Amino acid sequence: MAAVTYELKKVCKQSGARLGVLHTPHGDIETPVFMPVGTQASVKGISPEELKAMDAKIILSNTYHLYLRPGHKLIEEAGGLHKFMNWDRAILTDSGGFQVFSLSKLRKITEEGVHFSSHLDGSKHFLSPEIAMEIQNSLGSDIMMAFDECAPYPSNYEYTRKSMEMTTRWAERCLKAHNNTEKQSLFGIVQGGTFADLRKRSARDLSSLNFPGYAIGGLSVGEPGEIMYQMLEETVPELPADKARYLMGVGSPDYLIQGAIRGIDMFDCVLPTRIGRNGTAMTSQGKIIVRDAKYARDFNPIDPECTCPACQNYSRAYIRHLIKAGEMFGLRLVTIHNLHFLINLMKSIRSAIMNDRLIDFREEFFEKYGYNK
Amino acid sequence: MAAVTYELKKVCKQSGARLGVLHTPHGDIETPVFMPVGTQASVKGISPEELKAMDAKIILSNTYHLYLRPGHKLIEEAGGLHKFMNWDRAILTDSGGFQVFSLSKLRKITEEGVHFSSHLDGSKHFLSPEIAMEIQNSLGSDIMMAFDECAPYPSNYEYTRKSMEMTTRWAERCLKAHNNTEKQSLFGIVQGGTFADLRKRSARDLSSLNFPGYAIGGLSVGEPGEIMYQMLEETVPELPADKARYLMGVGSPDYLIQGAIRGIDMFDCVLPTRIGRNGTAMTSQGKIIVRDAKYARDFNPIDPECTCPACQNYSRAYIRHLIKAGEMFGLRLVTIHNLHFLINLMKSIRSAIMNDRLIDFREEFFEKYGYNK
Repeated sequence: MAAVTYELKKVCKQSGARLGVLHTPHGDIETPVFMPVGTQASVKGISPEELKAMDAKIILSNTYHLYLRPGHKLIEEAGGLHKFMNWDRAILTDSGGFQVFSLSKLRKITEEGVHFSSHLDGSKHFLSPEIAMEIQNSLGSDIMMAFDECAPYPSNYEYTRKSMEMTTRWAERCLKAHNNTEKQSLFGIVQGGTFADLRKRSARDLSSLNFPGYAIGGLSVGEPGEIMYQMLEETVPELPADKARYLMGVGSPDYLIQGAIRGIDMFDCVLPTRIGRNGTAMTSQGKIIVRDAKYARDFNPIDPECTCPACQNYSRAYIRHLIKAGEMFGLRLVTIHNLHFLINLMKSIRSAIMNDRLIDFREEFFEKYGYNK
Repeated sequence: MAAVTYELKKVCKQSGARLGVLHTPHGDIETPVFMPVGTQASVKGISPEELKAMDAKIILSNTYHLYLRPGHKLIEEAGGLHKFMNWDRAILTDSGGFQVFSLSKLRKITEEGVHFSSHLDGSKHFLSPEIAMEIQNSLGSDIMMAFDECAPYPSNYEYTRKSMEMTTRWAERCLKAHNNTEKQSLFGIVQGGTFADLRKRSARDLSSLNFPGYAIGGLSVGEPGEIMYQMLEETVPELPADKARYLMGVGSPDYLIQGAIRGIDMFDCVLPTRIGRNGTAMTSQGKIIVRDAKYARDFNPIDPECTCPACQNYSRAYIRHLIKAGEMFGLRLVTIHNLHFLINLMKSIRSAIMNDRLIDFREEFFEKYGYNK
């Protein structure tokens, strides 16, 4: 029995959306779910208590970052990532693959693995499927991700095919190297760029390896939304129905709804925390830039429909003042609001699936929020 | 009846230290008390809920900063400073005098008031006793401070004498201009530099004006600690026993204890928040620089004797990692700890006064903490 299992509860009659439960060693998680990102063992500016208060059940943390600083062995000495960061709910760690390709310099990719230079100090490092497993075993995350190559967008067919095939071989090596299957589950990552046949093959090949869950990587990397939706429609039917499906790096409201409609169960993204630190808030009426001068004397909350602590206790005028004055607390309030907004959106999505009306919900949401991301 | 009154409960038999209660429109405050500083309507990085959890009963906010940004009229429109920043306990605002002299440029002091340039954008402004009252009346703080000149250290006798005399004349103008005595109380500020006779005269002259409380300003501005203690010993006996005494800008543990011994009831300082943001923590064993490499694998809390949330849930190693990685949450944890440490120190001081052993407590504390600030 895998450490993490997916239980399908219901499929929406208006769409392919699934209501389910992800059972993990650190609690059950209703899906579809959005996972806040705590890159460096902290969701930027936010405490674990605040995450719990907004009903976050699982967060993501980054293997690449933690490997470089403070080092996975230090976190293992601390008793694992949960204890190190005081988070007793579920954690998913990525494999480091995406960051090696997006952040580091001087990388050299071979069948064996990837040589790269740290974005922090230029020091030389090597990551491979085996090392990515060793690191994630040290971290002790509930869900580990296979080490993959995330091909850049756009890439040509041949490059994408070879990269996808290597990612599948790496996935097999990850399965062999993973040595803590009782407490941690390893998800495979579907690649294949924007080529439908490659996506299908990747999904089938990985499915035959019988992972406890599957991610879809290499999307939301610059391609138009329509292409992403098409790739999901080609890929998802190839994945087993009794396993969780995770769309990596996706967190805008439209993508969350559209992803759920296409059968995705899990999402993560830095979007709510990153734009929160820029003073941008997602609201029921669309995005607003709280630092804008027009909110200087606006004593309404960020979102009058929102029940988060930021909206219950503070005005746009106050938060704008804090941001203009360089006060950390302002960014914290917008970040709390944005995370609360997305977690609440996922609740609405789950409720819409339960009531077989996710397509209707999408139209109602977009009419208020706007169709932009 | 003044909005804020002081009730003397007991004097320590080992020292001149006083146990008392400050009654304010926003709650009673046991004294001696330390007031965290929320310069720009936010105690840097900390929420009002966190301040309440550490039992903070009163905070200080800065008239100069709020006048420049976002403007006192905006805060008045918001319903006053308490509502604007979601803090329903007591607030003390300074008069802006100290900041005009320490932060702004191009200032010109006349009997009428001070012309100065904003440290933010160089714009020209004028503050006077009347304007400082108007601003603080708009802010709606429980305790307002009279507009004073804080003479630089060192200043010669003649300059200090003239400055102190003008500060007394300004104090009279403040009393006349203050127009909300039912809800706000105005404290006078004793000046006189490091000259005992000037301090005594300032204290006597202000006492004759019958303020509801008295601050001692212009100390802890660079003079040796011994001189500060001497000035307190000369000044405090000249102040009425039935009014609160507030030593401005003092927050190191040694100064808090030494000030209480000399009959001071209130203190404020940016020290715990400022050094917290540099990764320095005050502990029962003295100060530690949490970002130091020697704490990289130290899985103990900042202070093993501390009951604050940072020490209950997080290790030095984790907090060091956060600070090294530039994560806001690390600075927040050290700040919470430092404020909790000082608020707890004040509780210990009050308990020592109650038990007539504040001098003994001082020796015990210094032996563990060290005599450094």
